[in-house]
Amino acid sequence: MSKSAEFTKLHVALGERSYDIVIGAGLDSAGLLIAQHLKRKRTFIITDKNVAETQLETFVKRFENAGIEIAQKVVLSPGEETKNFTVVSALVETLLHQGLERSDVIIALGGGVVGDITGFAAAIALRGIAFIQIPTTLLAQVDSSVGGKTGIDTPYGKNTIGAFHQPQLVLIDTNVLDTLPLRELQAGYAEIVKYGAIKDAKFFAWLEANGKQLLSGLEGEKHEFRIEAVIRSCQIKADVVVADEREEGERALLNFGHTFGHALESETGFSNALIHGEGVSIGMAMAARFSAELGFAPKADAERLIAHLKACGLPVHPSDKGPKALDPVRILAHMKHDKKVKDGRITLILLRGIGSAFITREVEEDRLLAFLRNELK
Amino acid sequence: MSKSAEFTKLHVALGERSYDIVIGAGLDSAGLLIAQHLKRKRTFIITDKNVAETQLETFVKRFENAGIEIAQKVVLSPGEETKNFTVVSALVETLLHQGLERSDVIIALGGGVVGDITGFAAAIALRGIAFIQIPTTLLAQVDSSVGGKTGIDTPYGKNTIGAFHQPQLVLIDTNVLDTLPLRELQAGYAEIVKYGAIKDAKFFAWLEANGKQLLSGLEGEKHEFRIEAVIRSCQIKADVVVADEREEGERALLNFGHTFGHALESETGFSNALIHGEGVSIGMAMAARFSAELGFAPKADAERLIAHLKACGLPVHPSDKGPKALDPVRILAHMKHDKKVKDGRITLILLRGIGSAFITREVEEDRLLAFLRNELK
Repeated sequence: MSKSAEFTKLHVALGERSYDIVIGAGLDSAGLLIAQHLKRKRTFIITDKNVAETQLETFVKRFENAGIEIAQKVVLSPGEETKNFTVVSALVETLLHQGLERSDVIIALGGGVVGDITGFAAAIALRGIAFIQIPTTLLAQVDSSVGGKTGIDTPYGKNTIGAFHQPQLVLIDTNVLDTLPLRELQAGYAEIVKYGAIKDAKFFAWLEANGKQLLSGLEGEKHEFRIEAVIRSCQIKADVVVADEREEGERALLNFGHTFGHALESETGFSNALIHGEGVSIGMAMAARFSAELGFAPKADAERLIAHLKACGLPVHPSDKGPKALDPVRILAHMKHDKKVKDGRITLILLRGIGSAFITREVEEDRLLAFLRNELK
Repeated sequence: MSKSAEFTKLHVALGERSYDIVIGAGLDSAGLLIAQHLKRKRTFIITDKNVAETQLETFVKRFENAGIEIAQKVVLSPGEETKNFTVVSALVETLLHQGLERSDVIIALGGGVVGDITGFAAAIALRGIAFIQIPTTLLAQVDSSVGGKTGIDTPYGKNTIGAFHQPQLVLIDTNVLDTLPLRELQAGYAEIVKYGAIKDAKFFAWLEANGKQLLSGLEGEKHEFRIEAVIRSCQIKADVVVADEREEGERALLNFGHTFGHALESETGFSNALIHGEGVSIGMAMAARFSAELGFAPKADAERLIAHLKACGLPVHPSDKGPKALDPVRILAHMKHDKKVKDGRITLILLRGIGSAFITREVEEDRLLAFLRNELK
């Protein structure tokens, strides 16, 4: 980690796939930082309609000030439903039509959807070109923009098609969060809580003390806490990714809350009724309750996690958000379609306590189904 | 390289992406060789209609004898037009529907099209699973099955979407060539000649002596020559791939004849009028003539290459195959859409002589256009 007046720089050490994460409030030097990565001073920006309205012009100006030509701006529809084969093939063909070359770099300016689809397009265009992430949501800043997971959805699940394709640079300007709705901020905050819950009890205690101010505190205070939380989250994520880039082991810990959460998101059709971070929040609360019920974690730790999520305005129970009448058997079926299923067995990430999670394939389906029946009754 | 009574084994040393190429005539132990790579004894075979009629049952029996369950056989339409987004997305969704897991291995049983599309499906399904190549054409055996280039086509060119995704094993049974039409054999042979032309003058001389018997000689002789030529071709290809896996330098030599060839194939709509190996043959002859014209190679070397291609029944001039009235400007435009174009400059692979090729971006467009006008008049 290195700090300058304007930003903090973290390094993700992955050999020839290594890159920096640059974090600051108001990155006026974004153009210069990017220019260093361009072989010719020409790039393509992929964004969505919402970001185009609020952030695009600021960044285009920063790029142009650094002498970078924007060969094309591609504006996608916002929302998870954009992550499909039709959109990604049209995106790649648009880039090819504009004369994309192998040494070009494309830029994902947006939230998780824009980052996932742009990263995947970069992974497959001309058999792989470079891309830069400029995440514009808290969720993307602390999670999806780091680590190289890219992909699109199929009827068989989220990101069931994709690639591990690391970005060449991640540029995080926390000032972009100022225009983000509170609900989006809270959803991103769920992923921050996750890092504390699975890996870092001290960070979790820090969040308990500062989480609410981070979300909606006074001006100066709010920004300082956001930068600090983003730096610590990215550092934990980077450490995990370096240890296990392709999720053959430890990286699965980052899916804490996600197996339950994805199943709930599936049942709501990945709609606005339950956004990803909210699904993760409910999923973490469920995993915590299940961990306590199975005797892995002290009940008090599960309750502490749930209490903090609630205090920050996040849902903690399936009935708090999304569809009301959920069928436990359908939820179980969704969990069985998870990418981490192995020999037909569901992978669960459970807690031993705050700051300590583990991966297990040992939980019997009957036990899980009984838990789901109780949660959904 | 190691030899047993039944097969020769070459090793492609790419660190954690290393794999073997096993070459033999009648690989009855194919099932056992594959079983070693399966975590659960269950696999998926992707093939095309032609191969399904001639080869599929033999291999299915070999697998079943080794206790491998075939979860699904997917039979694609033969031909280059299968290499599109619609087919690859349907293929991946079929596999997911059958309960594909990350640790599964899928098998490409077929020619270049089956290998390219199956490899690409493996690269993107669940963010990357393993696959095994069992090439059933001479062209796939000596070229496309080795080296991890996978992909599909777009209106902007062949394989403009794809991934570098190495197979886990390449199994080459030269006996499958017995049912291959002579034209297909000759087309594959063009890629064999390419290895001699760019890298190995001794091998080229060996081909001059044995090429015709390899294609259509007496029974025993024919098989022996085929195995020898496949081994030497795969060895050269493996060496080049190990030196430059992602084609940042030397690997581009393997595209000798391909920049011209692809342009001609484009103009014939990648149809049966001009199959890939034929395009490469004409392309090599053109590159040889252009090399001599520019003074890079002795005229005698160009003539020697062209004479051998002709002697083996291969086309050596644009007018020998495909559409008659070709427009030089359109051919040039196709060449400018090549993946290897850099800063708008066309990459050409030219000869210094038999056994020695080089990469250049220095040839002026006007010079190339004048050459094309002369070739196509």
